[in-house]
Amino acid sequence: MEQEDFTEMEPPPSPKPSFVRNVNLAAMDEDYLYHLALDTKHNDLKDMFRDVKFVCFGGSPGRMKAFAFYMVKQLKYKITAGQTLEDISKGSDRYVLYKVGPVLSVSHGMGIPSLSILMHEILKLLNHAGCDPGEVMFFRLGTSGGLGLEPGTVVISEAAVDGLLRPYMEVATLGMVIQHPAFLCPELNKELLEVSKSVGCQSVLGKTMCTYDFYEGQARLDGAFCEYTEEDKRNFLKRAHARGIANIEMESLCFAAMCHRTGVKSAVLCVTLLDRLQGDQISTPHDVMEEWQCRPQRIIAEFIRKKLGITD
Amino acid sequence: MEQEDFTEMEPPPSPKPSFVRNVNLAAMDEDYLYHLALDTKHNDLKDMFRDVKFVCFGGSPGRMKAFAFYMVKQLKYKITAGQTLEDISKGSDRYVLYKVGPVLSVSHGMGIPSLSILMHEILKLLNHAGCDPGEVMFFRLGTSGGLGLEPGTVVISEAAVDGLLRPYMEVATLGMVIQHPAFLCPELNKELLEVSKSVGCQSVLGKTMCTYDFYEGQARLDGAFCEYTEEDKRNFLKRAHARGIANIEMESLCFAAMCHRTGVKSAVLCVTLLDRLQGDQISTPHDVMEEWQCRPQRIIAEFIRKKLGITD
Repeated sequence: MEQEDFTEMEPPPSPKPSFVRNVNLAAMDEDYLYHLALDTKHNDLKDMFRDVKFVCFGGSPGRMKAFAFYMVKQLKYKITAGQTLEDISKGSDRYVLYKVGPVLSVSHGMGIPSLSILMHEILKLLNHAGCDPGEVMFFRLGTSGGLGLEPGTVVISEAAVDGLLRPYMEVATLGMVIQHPAFLCPELNKELLEVSKSVGCQSVLGKTMCTYDFYEGQARLDGAFCEYTEEDKRNFLKRAHARGIANIEMESLCFAAMCHRTGVKSAVLCVTLLDRLQGDQISTPHDVMEEWQCRPQRIIAEFIRKKLGITD
Repeated sequence: MEQEDFTEMEPPPSPKPSFVRNVNLAAMDEDYLYHLALDTKHNDLKDMFRDVKFVCFGGSPGRMKAFAFYMVKQLKYKITAGQTLEDISKGSDRYVLYKVGPVLSVSHGMGIPSLSILMHEILKLLNHAGCDPGEVMFFRLGTSGGLGLEPGTVVISEAAVDGLLRPYMEVATLGMVIQHPAFLCPELNKELLEVSKSVGCQSVLGKTMCTYDFYEGQARLDGAFCEYTEEDKRNFLKRAHARGIANIEMESLCFAAMCHRTGVKSAVLCVTLLDRLQGDQISTPHDVMEEWQCRPQRIIAEFIRKKLGITD
């Protein structure tokens, strides 16, 4: 009999949404969001961020800057004459943060630890700003390696699992390894799949494997180290594929787990840059890749336009 | 009887130094170092990098750019009139990479996964360039939270351990969790401690805890989530301190483990920005912190000057 697959379970009811779950925060005189270079003493976070409704995360600072300017057009957002968008976190060179009306566009770097720092600080920021956690949505717009998919396909993650197929993120916390389940929202995913069709992007629902290492963690043959054969690799990826893994990246597990802890609605949309069942190296021309990387952005832009009632 | 402490062991003899241990690499027609935006087809890596002897890694792109320009002065390096240093990896916005004669200055972002991607690609780069792995040294110049140390103190890592005090990095590799021990070089550390004295930087040798999470992973009370008390935190940090942990950061374990796998000599020097036994938030003025963050750079600059026989 096949092992029970927890990723097929209906997500348990989320707790009452709350950006933070930490009794210490209320007692702090001041909160310095160190890696965002913002704080509650020198920045009026309510004034700056209270209207935020959609937070869009992506790895690359350049891509998230471009997304912000793309959203200016998509939302018909009026920038004051003689002004432009600025990186709100320019005092730090860890992340970039742009705001276009109700949309935040923020870069998270690569890997779970880098995303995790940002998530903590963005969640605290939205809490300080007095946003309604039941009304805000989080999206990760990323890149990934696909399994058995035509490169350029967007995978909307049904569930995130780690490199051993476990559907939770482990955090070593004061000597205990705490497991945080990584559920995502089936209804939101269904809605996003419809939107992706309406903008003509090839999209699928599937499970996403999230690893801590890009080379050995994803069974690549082209890292500095490789202690397995091409056959080992092929068999591993095929077995993962057979269990519903559609793509592999490095942040979804943390993203889903932290969103689930808050009860904030969230989705992960990653375009596949190559089919890992075929190879490891990326050889697609730069301009084609650029267009692929815009696909999750196009889907989310259209989704947000619909929610805001913006039509052409 | 106290538990045996493996971090006190003499490191086993390193294998014959080699930047890469992967039989597949020799058979590849071309190698695209994707996250560095360099490849063996369009870039003459031998010509560009064959003289590299010291590779300096740090988290922040701005800091590693500043370090490169600092090294220009320290090495009395002649930049051609009308030219300046450029980010060699400017085609990617994942990392910055600068070269000043035999010194590379490269940013690794935050956390083990981000560092790990870079390490694989830098190791392959040096291999393609034909550098001698027995002659190259790697340094991580970072920031950290200290335990029981005056902020501004530089910790030279004797050993790196994870958030559970285990002296190895685990990599989930094709369904197996492989443990890579994280040894560092006692002789090199002794030499660096002497140099730090000669440049007037307060430095100590100590063990470094390396975590996957900045807030809950490091027992902070000021994250978005906190499921433990101030007393739990204090007790955990005190017990870590009692076992020789001098500071906490997020990359040393991977850095030490990957260097040990190659046999390349390496050291980790992190300045402490606060004493975690006293608090979590950083309230030191910006300019004081800037000076502190230069301390590991000053030590390594002097170390390199000594090796190259450069005097004022």
